[in-house]
Amino acid sequence: MREQGAISAVLGILLILLIAGCQGAAEEKRFQYEIKEFQVPLDHFSFLINATFNIRYLYNDSFVDKSNGRTPIFFYTGNEGDIELFAQNTGFVWEQAELQRALVIFAEHRYYGKSLPFGSSTFNSSMPEHLAYFTVEQTLEDYAMLITFLRNDRQMPVVAFGGSYGGMLAAWFRMKYPHLVHGALAASAPILQFPGITDCDIFYRIATSVFQNAYNGNCTVNIAKSWKLFESLGGNDAGKKQISDAFNLCTPLKTDGDLKQFLDYVEEVYSNLAMVNYPYNSSFLAPLPAYPVRQVCFYLKDLHPTDGDLLHAMASALAVYTNYTGSAKCLNTSVSSSADDSGWDIQTCNQMVMPFCSNGTETMFRPSTWNFKEFAEKCYKKYRLTPKPYDIILRYGGRNIEAVTNIIFSNGLLDPWSGGGVLQAPNDRVFVIILPEGAHHLDLRHSDPADPPSVRDARQKEAAIIAQWIKEF
Amino acid sequence: MREQGAISAVLGILLILLIAGCQGAAEEKRFQYEIKEFQVPLDHFSFLINATFNIRYLYNDSFVDKSNGRTPIFFYTGNEGDIELFAQNTGFVWEQAELQRALVIFAEHRYYGKSLPFGSSTFNSSMPEHLAYFTVEQTLEDYAMLITFLRNDRQMPVVAFGGSYGGMLAAWFRMKYPHLVHGALAASAPILQFPGITDCDIFYRIATSVFQNAYNGNCTVNIAKSWKLFESLGGNDAGKKQISDAFNLCTPLKTDGDLKQFLDYVEEVYSNLAMVNYPYNSSFLAPLPAYPVRQVCFYLKDLHPTDGDLLHAMASALAVYTNYTGSAKCLNTSVSSSADDSGWDIQTCNQMVMPFCSNGTETMFRPSTWNFKEFAEKCYKKYRLTPKPYDIILRYGGRNIEAVTNIIFSNGLLDPWSGGGVLQAPNDRVFVIILPEGAHHLDLRHSDPADPPSVRDARQKEAAIIAQWIKEF
Repeated sequence: MREQGAISAVLGILLILLIAGCQGAAEEKRFQYEIKEFQVPLDHFSFLINATFNIRYLYNDSFVDKSNGRTPIFFYTGNEGDIELFAQNTGFVWEQAELQRALVIFAEHRYYGKSLPFGSSTFNSSMPEHLAYFTVEQTLEDYAMLITFLRNDRQMPVVAFGGSYGGMLAAWFRMKYPHLVHGALAASAPILQFPGITDCDIFYRIATSVFQNAYNGNCTVNIAKSWKLFESLGGNDAGKKQISDAFNLCTPLKTDGDLKQFLDYVEEVYSNLAMVNYPYNSSFLAPLPAYPVRQVCFYLKDLHPTDGDLLHAMASALAVYTNYTGSAKCLNTSVSSSADDSGWDIQTCNQMVMPFCSNGTETMFRPSTWNFKEFAEKCYKKYRLTPKPYDIILRYGGRNIEAVTNIIFSNGLLDPWSGGGVLQAPNDRVFVIILPEGAHHLDLRHSDPADPPSVRDARQKEAAIIAQWIKEF
Repeated sequence: MREQGAISAVLGILLILLIAGCQGAAEEKRFQYEIKEFQVPLDHFSFLINATFNIRYLYNDSFVDKSNGRTPIFFYTGNEGDIELFAQNTGFVWEQAELQRALVIFAEHRYYGKSLPFGSSTFNSSMPEHLAYFTVEQTLEDYAMLITFLRNDRQMPVVAFGGSYGGMLAAWFRMKYPHLVHGALAASAPILQFPGITDCDIFYRIATSVFQNAYNGNCTVNIAKSWKLFESLGGNDAGKKQISDAFNLCTPLKTDGDLKQFLDYVEEVYSNLAMVNYPYNSSFLAPLPAYPVRQVCFYLKDLHPTDGDLLHAMASALAVYTNYTGSAKCLNTSVSSSADDSGWDIQTCNQMVMPFCSNGTETMFRPSTWNFKEFAEKCYKKYRLTPKPYDIILRYGGRNIEAVTNIIFSNGLLDPWSGGGVLQAPNDRVFVIILPEGAHHLDLRHSDPADPPSVRDARQKEAAIIAQWIKEF
């Protein structure tokens, strides 16, 4: 059964991929800043706990017009990862800051990067109580205090920016602290991907649709029927060997556990491909061609292949993602884990409870159900955390966001996460921008000659709205 | 030195007075309801503490049109006291509920009435950790969960009501949970009475102005100079006796401590008089005539009285408040303390840090300064609490409430608390209603033939706005 832990990790992994793939941008440091620290209470809401720790933030005032008493602050609401990597991969903020002569701040999310409340013991599994302050509300309070400190009683318009979970934070930040945040750009922010307000199969349905429309309809038919083939072949040693050979696995399948891990990996690759189905060559975990899903589906275009043909077609298809340059000697399916992935996995076990499922007939993915009880038991076993699936809806309103103002929700229609995004504006002070060719928060990246028109248009619209907010202030 | 603890207690005491004085309404039970309980987390924001307890709420669905799928909920955000007493003293909610066929809910504030998280040990001074969850945010979450439970996935417009601190809660509830609360009537809600955003002497200045304009200008001159007289007389035994005789004290002054307590009492009576300076006979701690301040100042109308004359004039003036019926045999200055007062005193020591001061030349009150450090030390000594004076501004925006919508702020100009109220609408979706003859949240009470036009007008406007909110929903 496929579960949230796995799929939610995808969001985290994707970010790592985006980051790692930025042509070594982190090393190059395309954008410059000072790294500073800011002391925050461990628990903003308690009158019992007085402990504090430091979060990091990146600071650049080089664009600022010192003669302007109302300097805008462009504030990136850091999400699940080291803040430096987000700074290097969010070029839109830097380009707009130069234009608007803004102070640039990238704030690191507590429990990520070097903003660890308990240092090296933060994630120590024998101290599960260390995870108690790892919430959206605590994080937003960190950011609210940091902005209050930066403004230092001056009148400065603040625009929040964020992508993916960072976009959710940017939107929620504006909702809850409109006196501090005058507008927010929430890019690819699935704020509706929560229990009871979005179908749990939406992610897989959109991903399937991306594959369905990429080359011809046979692609999803072949992927859908491949699972049975894998299961049946994998049922015996000869079959396991056949799969291992066809996919050129570095570690041949031996056990049923190996088979399960392999199938999880394949499914994850499909999800990733849908998310990073960018219209130009890009370089993530492995380099990819433009519209990689089209390439994948090219190998799966034939109807009624034999089992052997299907197996080999699948191997060629997967290699688009795993070996586009042809330099990999074999296929390594062990997913590397980083501190950031662990962090996100913990958040799915407290508040970020995002149900995923697949009914197996409307999607090309394996059938799976959403079982909160089992999910919660796993969370408790792993982290001693009992998830609160309705926390986010209670506080941020779910679909009832009529009272919200000054937020841009941008979504790429090729992004499976758009299913949990805001696609209809609740009023005329909330802006919805759709990128037909857009994958996951492409609009937040720096402008590139290869950008398709929809991304350029989106950025122009976003820039105009942000300029208007600053002017109105 | 006069300090916040004392003055803040006035707010609490006033409520007790309002309640106690309502012609025995609590006993009569003018309004009927079921008393129910609702389970809430002790700490809504923690993933460490899983304890729960029950808050009480009052429930009346007798006005509800069962055929209407969109029944309005009129939700009183309970403040510092037993919720039954607020229910009996907030007639406006009941009258409007009948008109709008609304479900009536009065929710009891945690740590008050019978909604005690730790039962009889809640306020046990040897367990100061029991006070850690006594915050505005926890309380609003209690109310948010209760509304979510009551709505049970149905579309129901919710209007929050509250007076004084309850009005602050109603306003903040709408600000933070606009998806649950569609509008709020915040009556006499001093949401701006916080450090750095309102002058600390505003309360005493308004109170002085009420006395200044009540009869003739000599009233405040006499009160202002009386303090020196009391101090000088009180410096020796004969003088203490002279004061005790003049005021007919039940317990004659013996020590300097007795003198201080007496002067604190006198000052508190002036503050109370300004707050309850209602335009018709009313009955609070003691029965009062219409415009009691005018009566008080009648006795203090003469310029340049001798010391002896001033002393006796003061005694007559004070008796307007302490013995209007003439039935008191002597004057008892020991202020009774109730659990509710204790509760409010604790809240001033965590978040409700409201600075008060008097410069002694612009007011008739004794000079006093606002010294946060000393105040905080007292709080720590009393409750092991370290006040967070900027919590409220950080979260609710202080004067920066431009983004707020659907709140009515009503204030009586005779109410010293109006100095910390919202008197200018930040936009056209926030309504400010001024009651020139209004004292503390008079508009929330049931209608009475003796109501002055400004209160009737205010209620009419409030009713129309509330009806519009329900219609818009």
